[in-house]
Amino acid sequence: MKVGIIQQANSSDMEANIEKLRRSIIQCSREGASLVVLQELHNGLYFCQTEDTAVFDRSEPIPGPSTRLFGGLAKECGVVLVLSLFEKRAPGLYHNTAVVMERDGSIAGIYRKMHIPDDPAYYEKFYFTPGDLGFTPVDTSCGRLGVLICWDQWYPEAARLMAMRGAEVLIYPTAIGWETSDTDEEKCRQHDAWLTIQRAHAVANGLPVVTVNRVGHEPDPSGSTDGICFWGSSFAAGAQGELLVQLPADSEERRVVEVPDRRESVRRWWPFFRDRRIDAYRGLTERYLDT
Amino acid sequence: MKVGIIQQANSSDMEANIEKLRRSIIQCSREGASLVVLQELHNGLYFCQTEDTAVFDRSEPIPGPSTRLFGGLAKECGVVLVLSLFEKRAPGLYHNTAVVMERDGSIAGIYRKMHIPDDPAYYEKFYFTPGDLGFTPVDTSCGRLGVLICWDQWYPEAARLMAMRGAEVLIYPTAIGWETSDTDEEKCRQHDAWLTIQRAHAVANGLPVVTVNRVGHEPDPSGSTDGICFWGSSFAAGAQGELLVQLPADSEERRVVEVPDRRESVRRWWPFFRDRRIDAYRGLTERYLDT
Repeated sequence: MKVGIIQQANSSDMEANIEKLRRSIIQCSREGASLVVLQELHNGLYFCQTEDTAVFDRSEPIPGPSTRLFGGLAKECGVVLVLSLFEKRAPGLYHNTAVVMERDGSIAGIYRKMHIPDDPAYYEKFYFTPGDLGFTPVDTSCGRLGVLICWDQWYPEAARLMAMRGAEVLIYPTAIGWETSDTDEEKCRQHDAWLTIQRAHAVANGLPVVTVNRVGHEPDPSGSTDGICFWGSSFAAGAQGELLVQLPADSEERRVVEVPDRRESVRRWWPFFRDRRIDAYRGLTERYLDT
Repeated sequence: MKVGIIQQANSSDMEANIEKLRRSIIQCSREGASLVVLQELHNGLYFCQTEDTAVFDRSEPIPGPSTRLFGGLAKECGVVLVLSLFEKRAPGLYHNTAVVMERDGSIAGIYRKMHIPDDPAYYEKFYFTPGDLGFTPVDTSCGRLGVLICWDQWYPEAARLMAMRGAEVLIYPTAIGWETSDTDEEKCRQHDAWLTIQRAHAVANGLPVVTVNRVGHEPDPSGSTDGICFWGSSFAAGAQGELLVQLPADSEERRVVEVPDRRESVRRWWPFFRDRRIDAYRGLTERYLDT
């Protein structure tokens, strides 16, 4: 499977952002991609640096304007597209939602972000109601896609459940970056931890991982911090966690990468699913095991 | 906490192996270690390359000769010691068991390997009954130790459950190596996957990891393969998965490393435990989620 990865720096001009995405998607399809993955909340700025009720105006229903627009593009290009949208489900009920568009322009399925972060500059719990659809992959003409979103990437449980439901690849649209005040050592540890844990999901589950991250600096609208420097570094890893490609940390880039399906052979040699001690995992559904 | 790591190449001369361990443990204590971790099945050769009923003669009860011998050494040196033994529990009932010796020479607790591998040259399912004690850390004068063993290292579930029960550090005695017939690329992928997934356990759970692996070549007693080349590379990683130390892949080495407890600060910034979706994890206790 050839996968297109579009790592973009966004501005407040949504039309310009979408026009850049459109050109990149077309280019990926010309380079042979059958699946194209966009970054988290790709239409605009990452708006969670402050808590502002006016921002809810940027949400949209699903189906809605973005699924129509990108659905048409998916059909035009003949590719499966993974979108990441700010979903308005009802007044006062919003989600961070990935939408998988089939190559005929229809909606193949959606995933609502299950794990919602909240820390300074990432006030997502204000905006996004935690997902209620569980960890269910989406069946497409490219295979069964285990779509997760950003903060989910820190949770081995999410990756495992997607794999156990037959996902052939894990896909993470994401928007993660550095606080400009962090030391270089701390930045390095964070970036490396982020790459390491997602490669480990590939290892633990014997399947490839594709992660598409935002790039560029976005100022803090409140002016109380220096904003976020998104670290790009979008990548694809194979079923043993080996890096297939990694994009730069500091610039926009589009790349089409061949992601082989080696699940069958890798899992024969490393049959982790065979030996899981499901009789002893009950504690995983607890908050903590106080002793 | 200062941790001593003893990476050793063993021969069939068990007395000589134990004498080397004894000298290394004393040396680690002189260098200030309060905790010393030995590799998996440290008293002898890795005997699972073939299935041979005579090998069960090497097992021993717990408490038994090794806990007496190393218990005396723990007391003499004033260190906590993590042992890895072939436990005889009853005729026909054997385990791969880690024993934590307190610095007064007593047994602080045991862990019986829960995930048992079985693949060519690692016929462990023949020898070891899967553990029945679950994932329970051991309280010691050095803190609460999350001791796991080798194949367990591929399971995020095991690491998570130890962390949820308050483990302050994950400890993996292990014996893993290369098939001599593998290509260099495959060897590299395997070694990197092994390091990656254990560093990821540190990341996911915000605690340090200490892994002690066997080194050196051991022939296949059956002569049907070229034996195993154990890849050493014992390491310690901090609570963000950052490597604190890594030993060589091809030689014996003893090292004392400072392993800081940064759980409190790391988990404040990356509060993964806060956001676990325990309402949606029930599937983790299933074998597979057929769809």
